[in-house]
Amino acid sequence: MTETVVATRSFTEKLDAARTASRVLATTNAALKNRALEAIAAAIVESADRIITANDLDLVNGRDNGLTIGLLDRLRLDRSRLGGLAEAVRLVATLVDPVGANVRGQTLPNGLRLSEVRVPFGVVGVIYEARPNVTVDIASLALKSGNAVVLRGGSAAENTNRALVAIIQEALVSVGLPADAVQTIDEFGRDGARQLMQARGQIDVLIPRGSADLINTVVTESKVPVIETGAGIVHVFLDSSADEAWAIDIVHNSKVQRPSVCNALETLLVHEAAAERLLPSVLGALRASGVTIHGDDRTRQIFADAVPATEEDWTTEYMSLDLAVRVVGSLDEAIDHIRRYSTHHTESIVTNDLGNAERFLAEVDSAVVMVNSSTRFTDGGEFGFGAEVGISTQKLHARGPMGLSELTSTKWIVRGAGQVRK
Amino acid sequence: MTETVVATRSFTEKLDAARTASRVLATTNAALKNRALEAIAAAIVESADRIITANDLDLVNGRDNGLTIGLLDRLRLDRSRLGGLAEAVRLVATLVDPVGANVRGQTLPNGLRLSEVRVPFGVVGVIYEARPNVTVDIASLALKSGNAVVLRGGSAAENTNRALVAIIQEALVSVGLPADAVQTIDEFGRDGARQLMQARGQIDVLIPRGSADLINTVVTESKVPVIETGAGIVHVFLDSSADEAWAIDIVHNSKVQRPSVCNALETLLVHEAAAERLLPSVLGALRASGVTIHGDDRTRQIFADAVPATEEDWTTEYMSLDLAVRVVGSLDEAIDHIRRYSTHHTESIVTNDLGNAERFLAEVDSAVVMVNSSTRFTDGGEFGFGAEVGISTQKLHARGPMGLSELTSTKWIVRGAGQVRK
Repeated sequence: MTETVVATRSFTEKLDAARTASRVLATTNAALKNRALEAIAAAIVESADRIITANDLDLVNGRDNGLTIGLLDRLRLDRSRLGGLAEAVRLVATLVDPVGANVRGQTLPNGLRLSEVRVPFGVVGVIYEARPNVTVDIASLALKSGNAVVLRGGSAAENTNRALVAIIQEALVSVGLPADAVQTIDEFGRDGARQLMQARGQIDVLIPRGSADLINTVVTESKVPVIETGAGIVHVFLDSSADEAWAIDIVHNSKVQRPSVCNALETLLVHEAAAERLLPSVLGALRASGVTIHGDDRTRQIFADAVPATEEDWTTEYMSLDLAVRVVGSLDEAIDHIRRYSTHHTESIVTNDLGNAERFLAEVDSAVVMVNSSTRFTDGGEFGFGAEVGISTQKLHARGPMGLSELTSTKWIVRGAGQVRK
Repeated sequence: MTETVVATRSFTEKLDAARTASRVLATTNAALKNRALEAIAAAIVESADRIITANDLDLVNGRDNGLTIGLLDRLRLDRSRLGGLAEAVRLVATLVDPVGANVRGQTLPNGLRLSEVRVPFGVVGVIYEARPNVTVDIASLALKSGNAVVLRGGSAAENTNRALVAIIQEALVSVGLPADAVQTIDEFGRDGARQLMQARGQIDVLIPRGSADLINTVVTESKVPVIETGAGIVHVFLDSSADEAWAIDIVHNSKVQRPSVCNALETLLVHEAAAERLLPSVLGALRASGVTIHGDDRTRQIFADAVPATEEDWTTEYMSLDLAVRVVGSLDEAIDHIRRYSTHHTESIVTNDLGNAERFLAEVDSAVVMVNSSTRFTDGGEFGFGAEVGISTQKLHARGPMGLSELTSTKWIVRGAGQVRK
C-alpha cells in the first residue's frame, strides 16, 4: 500500500521525490493531466466508503478533543460532499492549461527570438487547517498547472487526508504519472510545517490557507517565498450621492449572503450627508436578517438598535452576522479609515459621483476596489477563472483572486543562430 | 538642508514619510515624473563638485580601511561617470510609464466590468553594497514606476550616497514632488538593514543587490517579500552536433566579454562525441584571451594546458577569467549537471539537433534558456526593456531580466451598477 511506503520515508526523501515528480509533470501534456484528474474524480466517488471510514475516525477524535460544531462540520465528508469534490476536480479538467502559454516575446534587431512562456513553479507547499476539501482542491489545481504538491493539513483531519492522498496517488499511477506528485507530510506533525518553511530551494512557493494566525506564522517564519492569502476586513463606503436601493442591496448582500468568508463586509462607512437618509433602511434590512450593528455615536443617534462600537470593532474580521458602522465627514475621511484598518482585500464605494468614484478607485490600495458592486464578487469563480487557489492580499506575484495562471512562473526562451554580444 | 532634517528622524518616522510620499507618487502622471527625472539628471551634472567632494571622503576612508583596488574603483565617481549616470536617468524618462497599464479585463455576464491595472508597489526597499551608481539607478527606476524608495547602501559609500540622495530630493522638491519619495537610511548602520528586513507592511518589497552573501542574508532573514536578484553559475553545453565556429564565438563571448557580471559563463559542458573536435579550438581561443581552464580528466587529456578541476569548481561563480570544463556522455548528463550545480540564471546549448534543442529548452529550469546564443544577452537592456532593475533568479513575481513593469503590482478595478451575488 502507498500509505506504508510513504510512512517510512524521511522528510528530505519526500521533498526529493516531489522534485523528481515535478520534472515529469512539467513536461506532461494537458490531455494526460486531464485523464489523471478524471481518474481522481472517479476514484473519490468509488472510494467513498474508504474515505468516510477514515473521516469517521477523525470526527470521533475531534469530538473527544472538544472541537466546536463548526469545526466538526468543516471536517465532515459525506457522500454528497464527496460528489461535490469530484465535480470540482472534473471542472479543473475542463480549464485551459496555463503551462506553455506565451506571455510576451519579440525578435531583437540582431535576430535573437525571445519568448517568455509559462512554466510550473515546480514543487508547491501548502499549509492549511482541518478542511479536507482543500486537500483535493489544491492537489487538482497543482496537477493541472504542472506542479508537484506537498501538503501539510491540520492534524484533526490526518486520517481523512491520508486516505484522500492515497486515492489520488493511486489515480495518478493508473494513468502513468508519478504518485509522488501529490504527497502529505502530516506524519511529521508540527515539525513538518516548520521544516517546510525552512525548505528554500526544495519548495518553490508556500501557500498558507486558513486562519489569520496560521497565515501570519507562515508569512513571518518562512524562508520559502510565500503567497499570502489573507484575511478580509472589507469596507463599503456609502457616499453622499449613493442610490438608496443600491446601498440596501449591496450592503445586505456583502454582509449577509455568506458572512463566514473573507470577501464578506465587516465595516460600513457612511457619509454624514447621507447618514440620515440611508442608515435607517440599510441597517433596518440588516437587522431583519439578524445582523448585530456595532455603531459609532453618530450611527446610534440615527439607528438606536445598535451596540456601541469600540476601537476593536474596526480591527475585527467578524466572519459572523456582526457589522461595524461609522459615520464619516468626507470621502477623505473614509479613505483614511480604510488606510488605517483595511487588510487590503476588497473595498467598495456606492456613489453616483464620477469624481468620487475615480478617486476611490485610484487612492484605495486594495487587491480589489469596486464601484457600486457587492464585495462578494471578489472570487476566482465569479471572476471567470473557473477555479480559485485563494485570494492574494500581497503585492508580489499575484493580487486578488488567483486562478491556475497564478500557480505558474515563467521562463525566457532565446533562440539564436550564433549571436554574440558586441 | 535636507541632510540635517533627515538625520533627526527615527527609522519609523522615515518609513511613515515614505508611505505618505508613495501615495502622492502613485497618482502622479508620467509627465511630472519625467520632469523630476530631467531635474535629477541636470542636478547630478550641476552638482558634480559637491558629489565628488563627498566621494573623495569615501575614497580616503576606503583606502584607510584597506578596500581593494576593485572596490575603490566601483566606489569612485568622476565627471565622466556622473555624466553617464545623468544620461541613464534621462533614458528612464523616455521609457513608457508602466503604471495604469491594463493587464487584462472583461465584462462579466452580470454586467460587472473588471480590469486588472498596473499600480506601484508603494514603498520599495533596496539593500546594496558600495556602488553609488545603484543609488541613482534605483531611485530613477522607482520614481518612474511610481514607488517611493528607501535605500540602504554600503557604509563605504555613505558620504557619496548622502550627497546623491540630497541632490535627488532637491530635484524632486523643485518640480513639486515630495522629498521623502527617495530616502537613505545609511545613518542607522547595520541596524537599519535589520530593521528594513523586519518592516513587513511598511516596506512592500525588498530588493537586495550585491554579493551572494548579501542576497542570501536578505532572502533568509527578511519578513518583507524579497525579489532575489541572484548569482549566476552559468552553463554552456556544446552538443555533439555543435557548429565549431558558433561554439568558439559563443563560448568566448560568454566568458571573456565581461567576466565580472552574473550572465558570464562559468562552466562549459561538452558532449564526449564532440570533445576532440571542439575543445582544442574553443579552449585555445580562450587561452589566447588569458582564460585559465579548470578541466576534468577527459578535458585535460584533450587540452593539456588546463589545471585539474575539483568539485569546488562546479559550484564557483568565478567572475574572473577562469572557466570550469567537463566532458559529459550525453544530453541527459549535461542536464543532470546543470540541475545539480546551476543557480538557475542562464544556460545555453550549442547544437544543430532540433530534438536536443527542444529538450534542453523544456527540461532546463532556469530563468533564461538559450539555443545557439551567447549567455551575455540575459540583460534588461539587451531584452529591450530600456533599463534593468536586476535579474531575478526566483520564480515568484518576476523571472529573468526585470524592467519597470516588474517594479509594479496590479489591482483589480470593478465597476458595477448595483450588482449583488445570487
